[in-house]
Amino acid sequence: MYWYLRLDLILALTGRLIVIVFVVNCGSSSIKYQLINMEGERVMAKGLIERIGMEGSTLKHTPAGKYTIDLKEEIPDHKVGIRMAIKALTSKEYGVIKDMSEIDAVGHRVVHGGERFTDSVLITSDVLRGIEACCEIAPLHNPPNLYGINACMEIMRGTPQVAVFDTAFHQTMPKVAYLYGLPYEMYVKYGVRRYGFHGTSHKYVALRAAELMQEHMNDLRIISCHLGNGASIAAIKYGKSIDTSMGYTPLEGLIMGTRSGEIDPAIIPFLMEKENMNAQQIDDYLNRRSGILGISGLSSDFRDLESAANRGDDRSQLAIDVFAYKVKKYIGGYVAAMGGVDAIVFTAGLGENSPFMRDKICNGLEYLGTRIDPDLNQVRGKEREISVRRARVKIFVIPTNEELVIARDTYNICRRIIKL
Amino acid sequence: MYWYLRLDLILALTGRLIVIVFVVNCGSSSIKYQLINMEGERVMAKGLIERIGMEGSTLKHTPAGKYTIDLKEEIPDHKVGIRMAIKALTSKEYGVIKDMSEIDAVGHRVVHGGERFTDSVLITSDVLRGIEACCEIAPLHNPPNLYGINACMEIMRGTPQVAVFDTAFHQTMPKVAYLYGLPYEMYVKYGVRRYGFHGTSHKYVALRAAELMQEHMNDLRIISCHLGNGASIAAIKYGKSIDTSMGYTPLEGLIMGTRSGEIDPAIIPFLMEKENMNAQQIDDYLNRRSGILGISGLSSDFRDLESAANRGDDRSQLAIDVFAYKVKKYIGGYVAAMGGVDAIVFTAGLGENSPFMRDKICNGLEYLGTRIDPDLNQVRGKEREISVRRARVKIFVIPTNEELVIARDTYNICRRIIKL
Repeated sequence: MYWYLRLDLILALTGRLIVIVFVVNCGSSSIKYQLINMEGERVMAKGLIERIGMEGSTLKHTPAGKYTIDLKEEIPDHKVGIRMAIKALTSKEYGVIKDMSEIDAVGHRVVHGGERFTDSVLITSDVLRGIEACCEIAPLHNPPNLYGINACMEIMRGTPQVAVFDTAFHQTMPKVAYLYGLPYEMYVKYGVRRYGFHGTSHKYVALRAAELMQEHMNDLRIISCHLGNGASIAAIKYGKSIDTSMGYTPLEGLIMGTRSGEIDPAIIPFLMEKENMNAQQIDDYLNRRSGILGISGLSSDFRDLESAANRGDDRSQLAIDVFAYKVKKYIGGYVAAMGGVDAIVFTAGLGENSPFMRDKICNGLEYLGTRIDPDLNQVRGKEREISVRRARVKIFVIPTNEELVIARDTYNICRRIIKL
Repeated sequence: MYWYLRLDLILALTGRLIVIVFVVNCGSSSIKYQLINMEGERVMAKGLIERIGMEGSTLKHTPAGKYTIDLKEEIPDHKVGIRMAIKALTSKEYGVIKDMSEIDAVGHRVVHGGERFTDSVLITSDVLRGIEACCEIAPLHNPPNLYGINACMEIMRGTPQVAVFDTAFHQTMPKVAYLYGLPYEMYVKYGVRRYGFHGTSHKYVALRAAELMQEHMNDLRIISCHLGNGASIAAIKYGKSIDTSMGYTPLEGLIMGTRSGEIDPAIIPFLMEKENMNAQQIDDYLNRRSGILGISGLSSDFRDLESAANRGDDRSQLAIDVFAYKVKKYIGGYVAAMGGVDAIVFTAGLGENSPFMRDKICNGLEYLGTRIDPDLNQVRGKEREISVRRARVKIFVIPTNEELVIARDTYNICRRIIKL
């Protein structure tokens, strides 16, 4: 608490405005970052650090409107990585700020906020303990997020840090949507329930869809399809996520690049016995060797499958078909869950860039009062309404921007603190 | 093959008409039977043998329109059970036929027909081997079915026997519906795919719905909800099952009495490690201790939960709500899969007898152009259209009759043989 109070004091006394936000997204061996000027929400620079703690680690740094700088250096841990990112941001040659002190706040992506974190939050020692407590249910994701937070707190002492959770947006789900058909004790004892992920993305594109429709999100029922290598769908009813396809972990729901999505649970003990796998091995099998990679036997990347299918590869075609069919069924299911729908949004790698897949998914949804316009659908990575004119249900392509949501939340929270 | 050819010969020479069909449904420790006269499809008697191979085994035998006879006798195996059933059917006191030879054909329910059996079939030695081969994917269900078949073949030598499969009706599913997001090799090696169950029930109620609508099933898109202690939903498009909620085993899909239905697959290795369970134990946990029993902590029977919920028990209410919500989402998903729907049918224990649950499920489906009529919905165990007048999508209650489907298939197959 000491640190938290002092920070408040400093901010209140200096009364400094929050302008520049550093957005940090740490994976187990990677750091993605952006520096965003909140006046005009302008990206000043972005970067990607890869292979942390491995041989051949690199930093790619791109100042806005300029070429990417490619640095190869030994990066043993996340702290060294954060230092390098700041060095790049403040470099005389290709930097965009003069000094680290120009960074007014840091926003961190945190994957799992459990049931405690229902919104973004200023990081205090108490919050840190809360994020640590969620490591058990997100053992792959939360620890690297914590490395990043701790590194930034050490390096930028006194700069407010905010945590933005992938799960927070979905904390509005009602119990009927998040509870599994398991003994209730498992929920009480281990927190086994649906949490959902990609929350910042679903929230962002739903907000944008409402803006494009010139309506308030609280008046709309939106289905947002975040279709990337990891893929999830959310039902957003009158501004709140009421259901989503990922569950206790990001394995559930749609078939993904290498993840199985939902399967008959009985298959798991069956395969463990037949193939002599232990719990760890089956988990790995379902997370890394299944999905469209498993069906096609070829690749986890839809671009590879599309070209293979065009060359006549049956199993690649099958993987594409299975994926599209699952998405279609989820859309139908969420329409029923919300008692109707006003807009369907496609986002993330595949959602933004594959007219073919969008068409395949929406083909047959005419009963909802909507249809894709084939000409409008020829768009990649740009915001556009792609449904036919006067469609009762609008279909959109909206590139996601999780970094911007993180920056906005960070900005808003820190501004509130200063006003105290 | 010898047995099969001789049977043909006998039937062809005698030219006897098939009139009386004995329908047999064997579980691991039970036999359900009906004797049906196919002239008018009249049930002559029905019975239930329980606790085979256990202490306190019983036979309940009910001649049509008469009281149930309750016999307590030692029934060590299925063969003794079948003998007892025939003894009851031919009893001077409460029997309905004079002699076993009056039984013209026997129809057996067989749970799993794998990919080989796409329709009901006359049992030959080759077919027997096929059913045996399916024991690996249905280790709990197919062996008792085989006991029953073998017993009847021994006792009623020369009487044609027909196998009617729970999976057969779903064999029309396209690959996109039946393939999981697993490495394709698992399908090739072990036949891991969606098979679906309750096929005879889904087929029967879909046919009846079409009849009630005075249309041909091949012109309709029907969603049939078989909601009993085991529960599954099927999407029947123009006469063919194109998707269903149960999968490789009857564990997948909806939450059931004691079965979890679908959950995040990652939960399974997680719980195995945390609770120190092996593959067998987790399978048992998901099949026998989960579902609405697990959520409510009270009962696997919806009637118990409804009364508990009325007394204010939160977790019983929750179990009911979760179940209804899942069914609703499946209906929505299958509407999307079929590109629309013409009729929704409720059948089996809960589907036939709970106006409350039907109302809960359909509430919110008005966007499909349908609504339940609250007065018409006050029906239990009787055929009735319960949607409001002029609803675009009809909603029906149709009591299922799997025994009749088995008898009809048996009758039709044996008649064909005689005509040879």
